[in-house]
Amino acid sequence: MASPHTSIRHDRDSVARTALALLDEVGLADLSMRRIAARLDVQPSALYWHFASKQELLAELSDRITATIDAPGPDVVATARAIRDALFTHRDGAELVLSTYALRLGSSRAQSALARALTDAGADDADDRAAALLQFVLGHATLVQQRMHADSYGALPADGPHDATAGLDRIFDLGVNALAGVTHSPTLRD
Amino acid sequence: MASPHTSIRHDRDSVARTALALLDEVGLADLSMRRIAARLDVQPSALYWHFASKQELLAELSDRITATIDAPGPDVVATARAIRDALFTHRDGAELVLSTYALRLGSSRAQSALARALTDAGADDADDRAAALLQFVLGHATLVQQRMHADSYGALPADGPHDATAGLDRIFDLGVNALAGVTHSPTLRD
Repeated sequence: MASPHTSIRHDRDSVARTALALLDEVGLADLSMRRIAARLDVQPSALYWHFASKQELLAELSDRITATIDAPGPDVVATARAIRDALFTHRDGAELVLSTYALRLGSSRAQSALARALTDAGADDADDRAAALLQFVLGHATLVQQRMHADSYGALPADGPHDATAGLDRIFDLGVNALAGVTHSPTLRD
Repeated sequence: MASPHTSIRHDRDSVARTALALLDEVGLADLSMRRIAARLDVQPSALYWHFASKQELLAELSDRITATIDAPGPDVVATARAIRDALFTHRDGAELVLSTYALRLGSSRAQSALARALTDAGADDADDRAAALLQFVLGHATLVQQRMHADSYGALPADGPHDATAGLDRIFDLGVNALAGVTHSPTLRD
């Protein structure tokens, strides 16, 4: 049972950590403030002491998911892969970061890392190119995560390929190389 | 009130048309079989006479949204724009088509149109490139639709730019040209 002073035990960090763990369990569509509060054994209203809105909480989760890509990779492709892999560390990570980015909430860590890598590679339109690259990575990763989740529940058509994500890594590299302005890359078909 | 023979008045087409109209009203997250049934004045179970699952119904909606891009545009960029514009004709259109594509349901009309345009343009990896292009278009369009919806409800941070989608058309063209293998396009900055 929630007691009047239970919320004192919680802070912004523990609310965010609980929400991230619950995201992995139930997915983004079912991650409600009510559910997060129940897991913390507090009333939903107690959450709003730490986060002004659900969107603000989701932005904090987005920042935590992308926190590992603060240091840019050695090049554009490595940075794009680091972003993709960070999105994959939590269920519906790509969808959550895409929504937060659409609402201009949270940090722009991923896009900034791409812009730095593109500038280092000599791009004269690094900001626009970083935005296009991030949109590709988010579209790609959302697709891969939804397909893997459907596959884990046997929800894909039975007549499809045995490996649900076959070829998607190759398409990711093709897309990133093309958007990075790398026209002839030895990693295109690796 | 629903009567025992009400469902006879409905067929696959009328269920899909009602669901598409409801999508525009309530958005994808709230488009439940229960709500669609209520709008049709039937029991939810009556819908399953026409569609085996909600996913099958969503796949039909996805096919209707992408139906207009059956005839490929004159080139890759025009085809990509036709796909984007088709996604924009219904609320959450991009998110719905992305989900259906992730689950390998519905037609592959959009990807096929891109592959044909790329083949016509001389690409030797038209299928992979079409997949990468579609993932970019879906990521881009999902972002734009979510941002426009948030903007219409005043849900974007007040310190952002006045035009919520400023620059996004330029980034779309940059991304499509790069993924199409067009390195120097006169339309890049139009």
